[in-house]
Amino acid sequence: MCVRCRSQTRIVEEDSTLSLKPYAKFQNIPGEPSRGRLRKTAAKFCGLGSWKIRLPITIWLPRYTLESLFRDLIAGITVGLTSIPQGIAYAMIAGLPPQIGLYSSIFPGIVYSLFGSCKDITLGPTAILSALVAKYVAYSDDFAYLASFLSGCIVLLFGILQLGFILDFISKPVIAGFTTAAALQIGASQLRSLFGVSGSSGNTFVKAIINFFRNITTIQLNDSLLGVVTIISLMLLKHATIPVGPDSSSCRVRFAKLWVYVLRARNALVVFVGSILAYILYVQGWTPFALTGKINGGLPHFGPPPFSTVVGNRTLNFTDMLAVFGAEGLVMPLVTILESVAIAKAFAGSKPVDGTQEMIALGACNILSCFGQSMPTTGSFTRTAINHACGVTTPAGSLFKACLVLLAVTLLTDAFFFIPKTVLAGIIIVAMTSITEFGLVTKLWRNSKLELAVYSLTVLVGAGVGLEYGILCGAGLDVARTLAHAARPDLHHQLFKVGNQDCIILTLLGTLTYACCEHVPRQLRRRAGEHVHVAVLDARHVQRLDYGVAENLISTILDLEQNHRFLLWNFKESHKQLFEDIHPGFSGRFVNGPSIDQHILGLEPIPMR
Amino acid sequence: MCVRCRSQTRIVEEDSTLSLKPYAKFQNIPGEPSRGRLRKTAAKFCGLGSWKIRLPITIWLPRYTLESLFRDLIAGITVGLTSIPQGIAYAMIAGLPPQIGLYSSIFPGIVYSLFGSCKDITLGPTAILSALVAKYVAYSDDFAYLASFLSGCIVLLFGILQLGFILDFISKPVIAGFTTAAALQIGASQLRSLFGVSGSSGNTFVKAIINFFRNITTIQLNDSLLGVVTIISLMLLKHATIPVGPDSSSCRVRFAKLWVYVLRARNALVVFVGSILAYILYVQGWTPFALTGKINGGLPHFGPPPFSTVVGNRTLNFTDMLAVFGAEGLVMPLVTILESVAIAKAFAGSKPVDGTQEMIALGACNILSCFGQSMPTTGSFTRTAINHACGVTTPAGSLFKACLVLLAVTLLTDAFFFIPKTVLAGIIIVAMTSITEFGLVTKLWRNSKLELAVYSLTVLVGAGVGLEYGILCGAGLDVARTLAHAARPDLHHQLFKVGNQDCIILTLLGTLTYACCEHVPRQLRRRAGEHVHVAVLDARHVQRLDYGVAENLISTILDLEQNHRFLLWNFKESHKQLFEDIHPGFSGRFVNGPSIDQHILGLEPIPMR
Repeated sequence: MCVRCRSQTRIVEEDSTLSLKPYAKFQNIPGEPSRGRLRKTAAKFCGLGSWKIRLPITIWLPRYTLESLFRDLIAGITVGLTSIPQGIAYAMIAGLPPQIGLYSSIFPGIVYSLFGSCKDITLGPTAILSALVAKYVAYSDDFAYLASFLSGCIVLLFGILQLGFILDFISKPVIAGFTTAAALQIGASQLRSLFGVSGSSGNTFVKAIINFFRNITTIQLNDSLLGVVTIISLMLLKHATIPVGPDSSSCRVRFAKLWVYVLRARNALVVFVGSILAYILYVQGWTPFALTGKINGGLPHFGPPPFSTVVGNRTLNFTDMLAVFGAEGLVMPLVTILESVAIAKAFAGSKPVDGTQEMIALGACNILSCFGQSMPTTGSFTRTAINHACGVTTPAGSLFKACLVLLAVTLLTDAFFFIPKTVLAGIIIVAMTSITEFGLVTKLWRNSKLELAVYSLTVLVGAGVGLEYGILCGAGLDVARTLAHAARPDLHHQLFKVGNQDCIILTLLGTLTYACCEHVPRQLRRRAGEHVHVAVLDARHVQRLDYGVAENLISTILDLEQNHRFLLWNFKESHKQLFEDIHPGFSGRFVNGPSIDQHILGLEPIPMR
Repeated sequence: MCVRCRSQTRIVEEDSTLSLKPYAKFQNIPGEPSRGRLRKTAAKFCGLGSWKIRLPITIWLPRYTLESLFRDLIAGITVGLTSIPQGIAYAMIAGLPPQIGLYSSIFPGIVYSLFGSCKDITLGPTAILSALVAKYVAYSDDFAYLASFLSGCIVLLFGILQLGFILDFISKPVIAGFTTAAALQIGASQLRSLFGVSGSSGNTFVKAIINFFRNITTIQLNDSLLGVVTIISLMLLKHATIPVGPDSSSCRVRFAKLWVYVLRARNALVVFVGSILAYILYVQGWTPFALTGKINGGLPHFGPPPFSTVVGNRTLNFTDMLAVFGAEGLVMPLVTILESVAIAKAFAGSKPVDGTQEMIALGACNILSCFGQSMPTTGSFTRTAINHACGVTTPAGSLFKACLVLLAVTLLTDAFFFIPKTVLAGIIIVAMTSITEFGLVTKLWRNSKLELAVYSLTVLVGAGVGLEYGILCGAGLDVARTLAHAARPDLHHQLFKVGNQDCIILTLLGTLTYACCEHVPRQLRRRAGEHVHVAVLDARHVQRLDYGVAENLISTILDLEQNHRFLLWNFKESHKQLFEDIHPGFSGRFVNGPSIDQHILGLEPIPMR
């Protein structure tokens, strides 16, 4: 017997107990009695260790060192410097007052330092979430706070009920298509600020582009110039590292290191330069750029999220507000989880990510932060990358970032007055270029046209109709694709001769669901054909077999048995039982063993016609 | 090399071209050039033979014999005798005037004799379709005719576009659950007529039962008595065959044959007896039973289906009427196809059913019949079974049946006046007992609890909320089940030793969709564990592999490669290309061949830590 056969034979036996619970096998170490699982679950809920995992600060704080403090502080300040312009910019995307973007960087930072398990992740407002919430903010700002609260509740529920598996059904092409569509929409919506064009921007990429060109005559030369210069500067700064060779002077090396920090704070830098320019011109009596204007700084109004609001002359109660969110509102918590978990995985490296804890932390951040006027927040790729690059060691980095932003919002609001809007728009547009995923197109084109269709559909619907609909259509097409595969499983066949009998082996694979209950018997009928005497169904690799498939196979076999002999080879006991149950007496056709030849030779020949 | 290995190796090569088009392989006979397919398609549309298949009367009529005529006539008369009481009864279920049920037996019968390809199938109103249409008829009778027209159009479209595969996604448990729920609902709705209870019956099983018991005090003793006697008579007649042995006299044999015909017309028989009884009592001045009453016989009003109607004081135009049907209305054409195709298959035996032609015939029947005041029609199990049992030879049987019903509706309407309603209710209730599928419960309980859940959900929602919702929920749960299987494919593994290296083989099977892109790498990580040196991924049986799965496998393998060696065994060329595309240089890990041992021995050992 060769290695391959041995492996298959043993494997089928080993894994025959596997059911829909994928982890049961691994939680149950061989030899351990099954009631051990109950004890383990009990221990999981009662043990101190389990609760500590849910409040990770209790794990890292006791071991906190001075070196960690120093590194976290550096990281916190650098990330903070990026968070301030990004916070203001993302508040702009959502259509909220600028300080809300800053508040949304403060409170999640504080809460995450308590609950967060990934040192790198930085929570705050993100471009995509802002774009999603903008539709509702058009009614009233209150929707942003309520969205944060409700999203937080749903994310927390996902964490507690361990529903993270639902994310498995959003495929890579859908995620890539969604972020691409989001980047397009957000970028397009900023064209207006970048060129100082008047009018509104619209909720989708297509609308934003149309509105932009409709108002193109109102273009402002000064804004356009500063905006383009900002974009070029940021692009240059992104790649402007100082080359350090092994023979560089120590001074040069030190300068290069410092320069890296400057580059990381490049967003803050362009804002700073732009604001200084605007201030100087303002003092000289000229305001050539559209400015951010007065920011109501200081601390936010603390209080529960608004469960009713006034839109126009009408008071909307909680039910009305829920109706405004509708089912599409569920995309927000989904995106919250998606963005954060994807980022956590990207930066975790070989360390596994505790998805449950991340969802609990995210939920807690969104629920608690909305009490301090926060919009929905999640992990931010740019800021997390900077945090990681600065060598952050614990979630304390988030705390220091929060402190810096808090300082800014209480003390520096007068300075924020002079930030030119076009600079912020430039920052957003540059940030968006890094999240588009057009590179995937060529890879999918070469390897999987169907997945490319999923990606394209997500981008097109996302950019044309709305981001939520893009993700829904993409996920829907993926489901259709999966169902199509389930309905038309490939059947391998091989023709061979035993003695003077023409034989065929049909190999069935994996799961034979109800959807293929017509396909498999039809294939059996076609391939058995007229010249085959013996047809063998090889079910070694069949794990599941639905009732309808068994029923149709039986009726087909009974029907074809006038001219053929059938052998059902290596079926599982449970499947044999099913066949016998449907048609008593059918089990005589089942055979087992490594070789089929002997069974074929033992068959009664078909009478001649 | 053993038979099994040989078979697998060859099969993978043979079938590697198989894609989503399941029939491409079979339409293209080996050796035939691929442009032959185009020619064949052209021939299919231009050839006279192809058009003859679409009008089967052109095939069977030239070969029609006198013996066929005699047999079809007998079958037509017998089926017609059943069609009359059933037509009236099903019109009652739908809430339509009795003659509509008869018209619905006439015109589809005529049209089917032109287009039908199955000799046995008898089209007419069915209990389930009547129950589905009743909801709309509550507004206006016009909805029934429009439903027939629209259903017909959709069914025809399904036939022309060959969309019959959509039915693959309605599993056996859903169909069984649906018919059970329908039988329960229809049976419950007839309790009112059976016992002469006043009030309305309600649109669902639950409502019908509640309404029945709410009005139980209005029960009529005479109706109840006659109804119960009808049911008992029908039950007895169903099984009351005359035993014929080999030594029976020829007279007895002839009588037994005649008796079988009487039994087949048992529905007509009980109606006849019941009506005679009612007539005699009526003549004597006593009307103890609720009677069918005056039927407006004669020919129907011919004309196009109503594209607008009046409900109360409001005129509904076509759009309004479509809005009344809503998306649930789509269940009607679906059920039309389901019932008819299922019946065609059941009676076709070893002859394959031309699903496309059946759908075209059904569509044409529904579209054309509604011009003569027909409600939606489809294949009827009872009448088809009688047709088959009478030895019908061509669809001409349908024509004779139609003629008999036409005679009855033009000449016998005065006699229909005396049919007691309770007798019709009894006929329906007995018919319903034969379509419930409770027997499936025990089989599913023993073999597939998940499918039992699908069945139960369909029955519960169907009986409690509405038949359409039952079928939707059942199909939805089936989709969820399929997705769950796709997300958690079983992975077989086997531990073995080569030299002093601990090795593991993980066997991947079938289709690895996006949904398992987290599961498979996670399993690889867990099973590779700490003590394994070499992990082998066996992909011989992998047919499809999504981008996300490849991407995650690569990152997991790169991550684990510090402590393990990885071999990717027998991957398809297209999959290798995908891996190489995602991570250039990855393809060095791929190996092929029947045995893995030599490859493991050739690996560079992992450096000691």
